Amino acid sequence: MRYSQAFIKTFKETPRQATSINQTLLERGSYIYQVGSGIFAFLPLGYRVYDKIRKIIVEELEKIGCQEVFLPILHPAELWKKTGRLNEIGNELLKVSSSEKDEFVLAMTHEEVITPLAKSKITSYADLPLILNQISKKIRNEARPRGGLIRLKEFNMQDAYSFHATAEQLDQTFNDFVTAYLKIFERLQLKTIIVEASSGIMGGSGSKEFMLINEAGEDKVLICPQCGKAFNFEVAPKDRKCPQDGEVLNEKKAIELAHIFKLGSKYADSFDLKFVDKDGQSKPVLMGCYGIGLDRLMASIVEAHHDEKGIIWPEEASPYQVILIDLTNGKAEKFYQKMMAAGLEVLYDDRDVSAGIKFADADLLGISYRAVVSEKTGDEIEVKKRDQEKSSLITLDKFIDQLRK
Amino acid sequence: MRYSQAFIKTFKETPRQATSINQTLLERGSYIYQVGSGIFAFLPLGYRVYDKIRKIIVEELEKIGCQEVFLPILHPAELWKKTGRLNEIGNELLKVSSSEKDEFVLAMTHEEVITPLAKSKITSYADLPLILNQISKKIRNEARPRGGLIRLKEFNMQDAYSFHATAEQLDQTFNDFVTAYLKIFERLQLKTIIVEASSGIMGGSGSKEFMLINEAGEDKVLICPQCGKAFNFEVAPKDRKCPQDGEVLNEKKAIELAHIFKLGSKYADSFDLKFVDKDGQSKPVLMGCYGIGLDRLMASIVEAHHDEKGIIWPEEASPYQVILIDLTNGKAEKFYQKMMAAGLEVLYDDRDVSAGIKFADADLLGISYRAVVSEKTGDEIEVKKRDQEKSSLITLDKFIDQLRK
Repeated sequence: MRYSQAFIKTFKETPRQATSINQTLLERGSYIYQVGSGIFAFLPLGYRVYDKIRKIIVEELEKIGCQEVFLPILHPAELWKKTGRLNEIGNELLKVSSSEKDEFVLAMTHEEVITPLAKSKITSYADLPLILNQISKKIRNEARPRGGLIRLKEFNMQDAYSFHATAEQLDQTFNDFVTAYLKIFERLQLKTIIVEASSGIMGGSGSKEFMLINEAGEDKVLICPQCGKAFNFEVAPKDRKCPQDGEVLNEKKAIELAHIFKLGSKYADSFDLKFVDKDGQSKPVLMGCYGIGLDRLMASIVEAHHDEKGIIWPEEASPYQVILIDLTNGKAEKFYQKMMAAGLEVLYDDRDVSAGIKFADADLLGISYRAVVSEKTGDEIEVKKRDQEKSSLITLDKFIDQLRK
Repeated sequence: MRYSQAFIKTFKETPRQATSINQTLLERGSYIYQVGSGIFAFLPLGYRVYDKIRKIIVEELEKIGCQEVFLPILHPAELWKKTGRLNEIGNELLKVSSSEKDEFVLAMTHEEVITPLAKSKITSYADLPLILNQISKKIRNEARPRGGLIRLKEFNMQDAYSFHATAEQLDQTFNDFVTAYLKIFERLQLKTIIVEASSGIMGGSGSKEFMLINEAGEDKVLICPQCGKAFNFEVAPKDRKCPQDGEVLNEKKAIELAHIFKLGSKYADSFDLKFVDKDGQSKPVLMGCYGIGLDRLMASIVEAHHDEKGIIWPEEASPYQVILIDLTNGKAEKFYQKMMAAGLEVLYDDRDVSAGIKFADADLLGISYRAVVSEKTGDEIEVKKRDQEKSSLITLDKFIDQLRK
């Protein structure tokens, strides 16, 4: 992509409405555009990052047997009456009437749709376990959206739902998700801790949250300095001491990146979702659900990986692999063509602006590798990783080999 | 994917609520699940088809310079007041209040969001032309959803918006979309005709529709039997004769697959979107918009490509490239492993059911190639295309080569 044709216009000022580092840097870098309070659009750069994160998640969840579905966000209110959540949840759940008799709920989660959907196919123990996953929009009537992309009215979520014949099956899948989620966060260079949590409006028999310790977080976790065990604020011991070793727990700010739940038979009971077991008995299906907010994940990467100059994307989330900067009168063109032919994802800064502006924009955008072609670089390119100070002259072939690894 | 583990359970009966061939076959084949009137979920098979169609569209639109964005569906009502459409559109536009002072519109189109978004970056003629594209959900309060996936309350649309300095630029992009859309429909084996159409609620200076002549269509087009020129019903000559050659136009049922509009400066005027031209003058930006409904496209493929046994997917839309049927006691396993290793997309029917059931399901699902391993096939596989009667014995290597082409 040529920078001169890309929908990118950076700016230096902190946006008036920005309340967080992620919003400031993502808006300044042309990643996002604010449509309303808690409502954002992804611009082309932001969409590329979103799509990379999405693919990483789908890839890791396929490995543990998830099958991808795509559920609607307009839910007949009838379904939410059956679980009682139509009235239980309150203002956060947005309702919309299409006529006097047709009332809908805008999806903030999908148990009310996925449970009858699963019921349409599940009859026997042989159909279980089953894991259905989707990535789709959620709407939550957040009274005070804040923290840039951290707390939104409209957001994109990966939400998976699992169905089981036995508690052991549910435990196994629950553990598989722990492994998959840790792998996803590792690929995005986010070091998370897992805390015991409250199940809130989801109900069920147990839940865990994946927390990123970060000053931008609005959640608090309590961590044992001795054994590392961590608790969500709501379920922490009242004396604030670690049950294992009696140490006083430390309080830290954190961002909740994911939440997983053992739902048990709560939703199966509401929709009478049963299966015939090996012994011929009809039994309720046990369920789990597992969610990651993608916008918040993107925001968290920025909160965790930036410096005073801009964003520092982990390689797997970088909108392009390399930003190619031309400081000559077009000598970079042939490097651009070769990089494209080699299948690299390149943003080619072909603009007629100063070197200073090009370097500053490259730092702000935070693309993992910067490759400079100047009058001094000859047949080579000067490559620098965004998170390192040192640059080095190497041939294009070597660079391409390096990125392909 | 092993059939025994896939979320597929076919059935023979026409679903009670089905009003069309596409809904009947897609529900019977476990492609879709109906959540409410005009509201469907994609099951894993359906999502695979959806995703393939999505990728074809994105690929062809990238070629004409589209940059992908992702816009919210919750639009502050303020934006729709500015264009006057908040009140103009009527019941089809769903409104939702999150509090006494916050009113939102659920997106049925995105001019009200994309125009101010474009304004945030466009200043000069050098920023133009610009084409932003997205694939996202739309909500329309359709009073009488019908035709399976043809007319929905909630649907997925590709909608692109173009921005121009001159009418010639707009014409060029408009023509590029004609080419790209024809290519997309060709890849999906849909032969469309282009008709002059009314601009309806979009306004602007001209629009064309891409129509698929099909009995399932609820639109009507008038076609000249002599020169082939076609008209949407609303803009056809009153005497129903072709203006070119005076022939009486033939009436045909058709499905509208796409609609493209020259919007002119209508939305630019509402949001004061201007650019500074080469001559230093400030001028309104000209816009175009271009949309394809993905659910309807999937439905149309089924309406156009099926027989009494089931769906016949065009190769590029087939959820898997091949369905591998084992009629032995596991001899197909090694073929499955080799196909997977070769990177083929395979649905492996490893179920313990009769050959008759396997063949019937393969026909219903409509996957492009069927490969059978029986006691008679030896080291080869018996391959049949879904749209042909003849099968042939070939080696796996040859088959893999054939599919890779």
